[in-house]
Amino acid sequence: MSELLGVAVLGAGHMGADHIRRLDRVVSGARVVAVADPDPERARRAVAGIDGVAVRAEVRDALAAPGVEAVLIASPGPAHEEALLAAFERGLPVLCEKPMVPDPAGALRVVEAEARLGRRLAQIGFMRRYDAEYRQLKSLLDEGGLGRPLMLHCVHRNVSSPPGFTSAMLIDSSVSHEIDAARWLLGQELTAVTVLRPRPSAGAPEGLLDPQFVLFETDGGALVDVEVFVNCGFGYQVRCEAVCETGSARIGEEQAVRVTARAADRRAVPQDYLVRFADAYDREVQAWVDATRRGRVTGPSAWDGYAASVVAGAGVRALETGGRVAVDLPRRPALYG
Amino acid sequence: MSELLGVAVLGAGHMGADHIRRLDRVVSGARVVAVADPDPERARRAVAGIDGVAVRAEVRDALAAPGVEAVLIASPGPAHEEALLAAFERGLPVLCEKPMVPDPAGALRVVEAEARLGRRLAQIGFMRRYDAEYRQLKSLLDEGGLGRPLMLHCVHRNVSSPPGFTSAMLIDSSVSHEIDAARWLLGQELTAVTVLRPRPSAGAPEGLLDPQFVLFETDGGALVDVEVFVNCGFGYQVRCEAVCETGSARIGEEQAVRVTARAADRRAVPQDYLVRFADAYDREVQAWVDATRRGRVTGPSAWDGYAASVVAGAGVRALETGGRVAVDLPRRPALYG
Amino acid sequence: MSELLGVAVLGAGHMGADHIRRLDRVVSGARVVAVADPDPERARRAVAGIDGVAVRAEVRDALAAPGVEAVLIASPGPAHEEALLAAFERGLPVLCEKPMVPDPAGALRVVEAEARLGRRLAQIGFMRRYDAEYRQLKSLLDEGGLGRPLMLHCVHRNVSSPPGFTSAMLIDSSVSHEIDAARWLLGQELTAVTVLRPRPSAGAPEGLLDPQFVLFETDGGALVDVEVFVNCGFGYQVRCEAVCETGSARIGEEQAVRVTARAADRRAVPQDYLVRFADAYDREVQAWVDATRRGRVTGPSAWDGYAASVVAGAGVRALETGGRVAVDLPRRPALYG
Amino acid sequence: MSELLGVAVLGAGHMGADHIRRLDRVVSGARVVAVADPDPERARRAVAGIDGVAVRAEVRDALAAPGVEAVLIASPGPAHEEALLAAFERGLPVLCEKPMVPDPAGALRVVEAEARLGRRLAQIGFMRRYDAEYRQLKSLLDEGGLGRPLMLHCVHRNVSSPPGFTSAMLIDSSVSHEIDAARWLLGQELTAVTVLRPRPSAGAPEGLLDPQFVLFETDGGALVDVEVFVNCGFGYQVRCEAVCETGSARIGEEQAVRVTARAADRRAVPQDYLVRFADAYDREVQAWVDATRRGRVTGPSAWDGYAASVVAGAGVRALETGGRVAVDLPRRPALYG
Repeated sequence: MSELLGVAVLGAGHMGADHIRRLDRVVSGARVVAVADPDPERARRAVAGIDGVAVRAEVRDALAAPGVEAVLIASPGPAHEEALLAAFERGLPVLCEKPMVPDPAGALRVVEAEARLGRRLAQIGFMRRYDAEYRQLKSLLDEGGLGRPLMLHCVHRNVSSPPGFTSAMLIDSSVSHEIDAARWLLGQELTAVTVLRPRPSAGAPEGLLDPQFVLFETDGGALVDVEVFVNCGFGYQVRCEAVCETGSARIGEEQAVRVTARAADRRAVPQDYLVRFADAYDREVQAWVDATRRGRVTGPSAWDGYAASVVAGAGVRALETGGRVAVDLPRRPALYG
Repeated sequence: MSELLGVAVLGAGHMGADHIRRLDRVVSGARVVAVADPDPERARRAVAGIDGVAVRAEVRDALAAPGVEAVLIASPGPAHEEALLAAFERGLPVLCEKPMVPDPAGALRVVEAEARLGRRLAQIGFMRRYDAEYRQLKSLLDEGGLGRPLMLHCVHRNVSSPPGFTSAMLIDSSVSHEIDAARWLLGQELTAVTVLRPRPSAGAPEGLLDPQFVLFETDGGALVDVEVFVNCGFGYQVRCEAVCETGSARIGEEQAVRVTARAADRRAVPQDYLVRFADAYDREVQAWVDATRRGRVTGPSAWDGYAASVVAGAGVRALETGGRVAVDLPRRPALYG
Repeated sequence: MSELLGVAVLGAGHMGADHIRRLDRVVSGARVVAVADPDPERARRAVAGIDGVAVRAEVRDALAAPGVEAVLIASPGPAHEEALLAAFERGLPVLCEKPMVPDPAGALRVVEAEARLGRRLAQIGFMRRYDAEYRQLKSLLDEGGLGRPLMLHCVHRNVSSPPGFTSAMLIDSSVSHEIDAARWLLGQELTAVTVLRPRPSAGAPEGLLDPQFVLFETDGGALVDVEVFVNCGFGYQVRCEAVCETGSARIGEEQAVRVTARAADRRAVPQDYLVRFADAYDREVQAWVDATRRGRVTGPSAWDGYAASVVAGAGVRALETGGRVAVDLPRRPALYG
Repeated sequence: MSELLGVAVLGAGHMGADHIRRLDRVVSGARVVAVADPDPERARRAVAGIDGVAVRAEVRDALAAPGVEAVLIASPGPAHEEALLAAFERGLPVLCEKPMVPDPAGALRVVEAEARLGRRLAQIGFMRRYDAEYRQLKSLLDEGGLGRPLMLHCVHRNVSSPPGFTSAMLIDSSVSHEIDAARWLLGQELTAVTVLRPRPSAGAPEGLLDPQFVLFETDGGALVDVEVFVNCGFGYQVRCEAVCETGSARIGEEQAVRVTARAADRRAVPQDYLVRFADAYDREVQAWVDATRRGRVTGPSAWDGYAASVVAGAGVRALETGGRVAVDLPRRPALYG
């Protein structure tokens, strides 16, 4: 194969600029042909050194630029619904960063629009599904050698939360990754959620309920617990242990060089998710480009994006009420079989 | 010091025989002078090769034997209350295996009897407090370098459960170790408990709710979660992670020789708690003998034994009702400061 | 940047076919435009599904094909000298698989030819320099926080050796990787070599001296020891510990999912170098493509390829004689600074 | 069993005082009845609080004290020969700290004296044979599941060397532990030794050749390499990897609590051999007391002590000459089977 897939990137902020760099220099088989950002100067900086990129302020103008064959959405979450629907209208394959659409009602509209098309166009950016360790864990569970999974113990820690981070965002921004990972690893839907709130850490900003401990039940009788702690101070850590009927499997230990010095044997902990999941992002975008060039859509679907929105919404209500909240998910459209 | 402490051992079953061996051959400064067991033949087998041991069927007769200066209770739990009260009457220091008294009302009577004496005589056999790893963890938490503990994540797994093991026993027999360990590590009381029940493992006997996931709240605002899984099939594992404000500390990884062979790098998992905690038992009994010879009483107290009974009782009700059960603990008598 | 670098791949065997796949589907910014292999059928299979590739039997014909801007040499070692010189004649940048040229005299001719050109054209395929762990170790050593490196302890194990593998090949094929890695990590030349020969493993083919233990001295006073064991049976393992004045750093532990089952806690050991170093190969070729498109030559040089040949040659003599053999390396031409 | 074994301890320095404490408070079945030390004040301090101990300046007077049934030698190495022979004369069982006798000729006299007695009386204090990890490794090798051992890779590091420590002492004091461990683990004699000397660390005292890298060959065709580095600065580390025909086994990783904080995941490294081998010393002395009370002599023999002296002597010559030195060991007397 040698023609390059022409991609329009929507959003030229931190994430968008990183994806532009990735499409230009890391991934094989694609080129950036258009960028949309309300701030055209920022967009221009992001494509500096790349020839022939149409820079536009409006999403629709970028999608209409010459050579656009696919779309990568990296704009802020609230802009995703409109961008997805615009891509659907033009029949363009899309890779959409998470959250697909933050509001479950909007997420449902996207699912319904794609279901009306009768074919999948969207892949949602749950990049953990492309992480080498998560994939090994998924394979292990699918092979069944350890028996049925009974529990997932998850840990999700950040050095510190960005300004404006709210208690609800621990659920709908951070834990949303575990929501998707759990659904994918188990092949089960999450049916109820409870949130426990230890007394907040002195390291958390005033008023932020951090850490939280989130419990999910599934329609397969499994239990998923998640420690989410976004001001742990020491590093970015994502761990997962799947406890099965005849064994357990764990991922997320530190993989850096082991240094013995100053009275200790230590491994560095990454400080940032872009470090921990750098390869996962590369593999995710490469897989999307490869599938798209072959006319296929793979990876997490709009339904997965929608389900994550609904479960996260229930989680936020559980946090607010202190009780157990059942998840109310409509029937899955046939398209997402 | 050179006179040996004369010990009466009550109970010559599995645990009692092991303690007799320990007092005779491992621990310094003690000797077994009397044994009580309803089955005198079993008692005689347990003391074979040890000179000058009085073998008795009745507890009171054993306590009255010549040379008895201290008592080690290793009889079945329901027999503990009477044995403790008998030792108290004679003013004998006691090391009592856990559970101190299975029934909270009986446990309270023991506490009250000791409080009336106005001095401590009993040490309860929570041997984890003597495990090297637990002690390191306790020191770390007490030093405060990691900040206040926010959560304890605990795992307690057995290869398989003995015949007759009930769903309630996962709480009041197995998790009772974590109940004491959490109270000790945190220096806090447990105030409420919730038990979650994933669909039981195919490896669990018919009708046994195994595994369970137990959540404790504390009066210091911390959260303690315990996976208890007594038919995991692969080994005996006790792990604990203390998540604090600025760091986390973990114990319970496998410490065996690391073998690389047949396409894997592996460490053996112990199959039995007597292997995992062999050193802890030795240190516990040595510490008790040392303190007793110096006329002191240290280690976990009757109050700790009572508190564990009360919390475990609440846990069993939480298991049965499916809801959150508050722990109702009376005020701690001054004796237990 | 958007024009793709046109690459001629020489050799369409196991390694060549893998590089063709990599250039086509993994690496960004390149395309395969020509392939040379004495077996044109094999060459055709290797480029199936890629448009517009010139398939040739002769190296020179492939280099002359339209669109060739760079060359990747993956033919057998003895064919490398001619291929490198042909590329130099045409002024084409080259990525040449290791060994650059197996015979030191031929390797020197390549160095001299490039020195006459007065500019570097060749990068040698020591892919470990692109492995994430090796790079972390190199950074650590260069930062100097652990002091001067005193010793490198290296382990290089394969499941089994291919047919025809000789005792000398443990040095000049397997250990040649450590030779380059040690020179690169330490920034020192290797000055002498001794080979110790334990009694061969029962798992080694009749007559093969396997394992061997190889000791290198350096012009910086460091010591490098290498266990090479190519029929270890259990996996492919490459480990390295740098012992420095104030600490040690280790790489090469297993990074797979940690599975606890059947009485052990285990991690899988990769069975093949293509698994262990898959990412290193991808990064190596990407770095070469990136540099080449920018008109630069980076990475291990022809001098590095030559030095490895000379040291390996001395190692083979040390193996044969049983004694210490000094390495006689000419002065480094100015081009290789 | 209940009469306590009466032990005379020779030497009341650091090691002697620690053994007195151990016999009094840790080990079961023994009591200290006599102590000899040229400094009677030091001896008195070491036995403070223990009743009925005869304190003597002379070895022979201590051995003649009432109740002496066995001897523990913890005086400086040069005093061992006389003490051992005096104990032999009286037919007293002995536990003698290493080195048995520093000078091979003196060591041989001890072996011959014991051989003349026709029965073993001496156990030599190679405490690693009582370390839990070493014992696991020994069992693994003896079971044979990994095939024949081909190589042992050993590391022996100290924080810093005491004043007066010489280059030869890295061999005959430090590496002597590996000499015994290798002989014991492999069940083979060491037949030749070579010492390599990297440029000394800046952390080593002026003139001390530190680190060194020591290579032993064995009569079973195995190879043993030892990094000895006594001023590594960061901790006390003893590691050993046995590379066998179908797998490798490793001991000596850090076993402390795992702490994740300040951007790293770390385990403490012990700073002192008394920490690392505390349990081994306890088990060693307990095993000696148990065997002695039963009239048996087990553990490392005078022959083992002698062999270690001879090999260490050869090692020192190898260090001085820079070449390979063959070990010349006489035939093993029948007594040592």
